Amino acid sequence: MTNKNAPFLLSAEVPVEDLGDGIRRQILGHGDTLMAVRVWFETEAVGVLHSHPHAQVSYVESGEFEFSVGGEKRIVKAGDCVYAEPGIEHGAVCKSKGVLLDVFSPMREDFLPGEQGA
Amino acid sequence: MTNKNAPFLLSAEVPVEDLGDGIRRQILGHGDTLMAVRVWFETEAVGVLHSHPHAQVSYVESGEFEFSVGGEKRIVKAGDCVYAEPGIEHGAVCKSKGVLLDVFSPMREDFLPGEQGA
Repeated sequence: MTNKNAPFLLSAEVPVEDLGDGIRRQILGHGDTLMAVRVWFETEAVGVLHSHPHAQVSYVESGEFEFSVGGEKRIVKAGDCVYAEPGIEHGAVCKSKGVLLDVFSPMREDFLPGEQGA
Repeated sequence: MTNKNAPFLLSAEVPVEDLGDGIRRQILGHGDTLMAVRVWFETEAVGVLHSHPHAQVSYVESGEFEFSVGGEKRIVKAGDCVYAEPGIEHGAVCKSKGVLLDVFSPMREDFLPGEQGA
């Protein structure tokens, strides 16, 4: 059901999920300790403030985002990177349509349909 | 000396290291369990076959690469992703100048100057 541990995840072959509210995501390479997820945001889409026990890096591939991490806010653009330690509250507001690459450690089992019984 | 655990790593503020042989890198967000590294390759630059105990995802931001993972070779382009399990031999040959985002778990302490006594 999943591509766990698969070495090659080609963009054209991996489904893109529409999460609604202007956000779509594609689960890319992942194993037990690491998971890469590409996320498309429409302008004004919001990744609401939340926290999880996974460490996270968000790399800005394109667009412009206002990120909040642990209460500190910054505008980030293509080439910039955000790091959220495990348990730290973070979120983002998309200021100009774009794409993030989010990478988590350990993997987000909750992102995989098989783990949710779907 | 390092940006370990820093929430915001802005591309314009983070040094880019020239590793020679057509490869440059920039250490982005990282903590104990995760490290993001942006790597620029000139055409024909080679990331030689190697392995390490860290899991790795390589996301292709631009360009074209022939990746090898565990003996399997594929051509990957913008939007594609490669995953190498811990201990699996992997490497890449740049076919057309481009940029990878490599993310490791745990962090690559050997990439930080302070850890090498430099």
